[in-house]
Amino acid sequence: MKGILSPVVTPFNVDYSIDHERWTTHCQWLIDQDCGLAMFGTNSEGNSISVPEKQEALDKLVAAGLPPERMMPGTGHCSISDTVTLSRHAVELGCGGVLMLPPFFYKGVSDEGIFRAIATIIDKIGDDRLRVYLYHIPPIAQVGFSLDLIDRLLTAYPNIVAGIKDSSNDWDNTKAMLERFPEWGGIFCGSEMTLAEAVRMGGAGCISASCNINTAAIVNLYRNANSDNADTLQESVNQVRTTAFKYPMIPALKALVARATQNDEWMRVRPPLVELTDEEKSGLYADMDEIDFDMGYSTTQ
Amino acid sequence: MKGILSPVVTPFNVDYSIDHERWTTHCQWLIDQDCGLAMFGTNSEGNSISVPEKQEALDKLVAAGLPPERMMPGTGHCSISDTVTLSRHAVELGCGGVLMLPPFFYKGVSDEGIFRAIATIIDKIGDDRLRVYLYHIPPIAQVGFSLDLIDRLLTAYPNIVAGIKDSSNDWDNTKAMLERFPEWGGIFCGSEMTLAEAVRMGGAGCISASCNINTAAIVNLYRNANSDNADTLQESVNQVRTTAFKYPMIPALKALVARATQNDEWMRVRPPLVELTDEEKSGLYADMDEIDFDMGYSTTQ
Repeated sequence: MKGILSPVVTPFNVDYSIDHERWTTHCQWLIDQDCGLAMFGTNSEGNSISVPEKQEALDKLVAAGLPPERMMPGTGHCSISDTVTLSRHAVELGCGGVLMLPPFFYKGVSDEGIFRAIATIIDKIGDDRLRVYLYHIPPIAQVGFSLDLIDRLLTAYPNIVAGIKDSSNDWDNTKAMLERFPEWGGIFCGSEMTLAEAVRMGGAGCISASCNINTAAIVNLYRNANSDNADTLQESVNQVRTTAFKYPMIPALKALVARATQNDEWMRVRPPLVELTDEEKSGLYADMDEIDFDMGYSTTQ
Repeated sequence: MKGILSPVVTPFNVDYSIDHERWTTHCQWLIDQDCGLAMFGTNSEGNSISVPEKQEALDKLVAAGLPPERMMPGTGHCSISDTVTLSRHAVELGCGGVLMLPPFFYKGVSDEGIFRAIATIIDKIGDDRLRVYLYHIPPIAQVGFSLDLIDRLLTAYPNIVAGIKDSSNDWDNTKAMLERFPEWGGIFCGSEMTLAEAVRMGGAGCISASCNINTAAIVNLYRNANSDNADTLQESVNQVRTTAFKYPMIPALKALVARATQNDEWMRVRPPLVELTDEEKSGLYADMDEIDFDMGYSTTQ
């Protein structure tokens, strides 16, 4: 898998069940702009949703005609048995890959322990079609993948371990990955802030929160990372991101989708997150108007 | 619920499934010593086990004749829907209570967000028999319960929020709880290191890793917390704990149960944890011999 993927924000009904209709519409809008679907990521509130709920949602999305080969659902749970169950389901649906958090409840675990977790999961799934993208997000999961651990996993499962999403917020770490594994081709930035440079170094693209709202511009930057105006495009997407994420990231994303779709149901987040206050929402909308931001949602529906 | 409960270590087969027979035997041994069963806690590797696995294990344990009123299974997951499913199952089995972690994937969440999570879970379960013991373990979960949040939950659900386990490793915090909620009666220490003093201040008891191995002595300390020799009993249990936990806590517990039951299958942990090395195991056993420690397992089987 290559290019731009969105950790799709998840719409909830008033009882916190998934609103499959709104979800399908948002996914289709992303696909229409050549943006893949990394549903059940951090910005999807993926870990706030149970395995059966995620299985049902994937089933319905594929049944609705969305292309599974463009899907990279987050499947990593604290329990390796949950990760096996959900990853196997994704493989059987034909998903292009899965984005796999390491087990993240225990802190300070060893590389050996994380290796055993991922290896056990891969062995238990036992399907050559499986493509694992490691999900490195130490600011939230606390537990992550060191370069040596990546090397060990790649050596043990060269055809299965297909890539990584680096959400360390540390460009030096992403660069170190790109330099150490130049032939890998599966290294995704966790943010578009360094997308152009990463692509020029052989990066696969990015999987970023803002792809939910600034989709066309980020896809355009990816396609033109080697062009003369890459820096201008990069600055432009950076401005959108930094303006929006002065507010809490997930509630802000949902508030912007709510505005674009004229449906405040989109504001809702599952506990323990809380939606933006009215004041924050007004501030966000004013700040985005200030930079002439338009999601362009209505044009494709 | 009162007294001493053990976060029961979970025995795994070679394929990492739960060994129900060994589990039942260990649970019965604990009950025989008047120790309650806080299964699926941190030291049970509870978050490394899926909801269906935990439901099945509880079902089998109750079917084997173990008393559900002495059970306080850990039921808190990242997803409120998982927590609802497992907690409801526990209530329907007649469990005396549930030990509930807050959703712990997102860090830096607000008291408002955690309040909404717990309130939503309680409302969705909708059963007057539910007794929630809040599980405060910030060193691992990172997310926890402030005194103000506890107050708010107690006010909103006075008959449901029955207590808390304080695994902050901060005696000042436990004391502050005991002082602020003197009538509550449900405050458990997360370690026996401060048990006597906590009981004298009105604490409910303790739920501690070492209750898996030093059961009789900790129960005896609880019963004699107001006696003249409480300090001596306290020093003695502290020595066992500090000696054993010079080694990684969960693997060390399992190694000691393995030794007592003469069954090295007990050494096994689920990834991302790793069992003790042979060298660590020998060191642990020698150190425990040095202080004349004996689990006394065989005497009750």
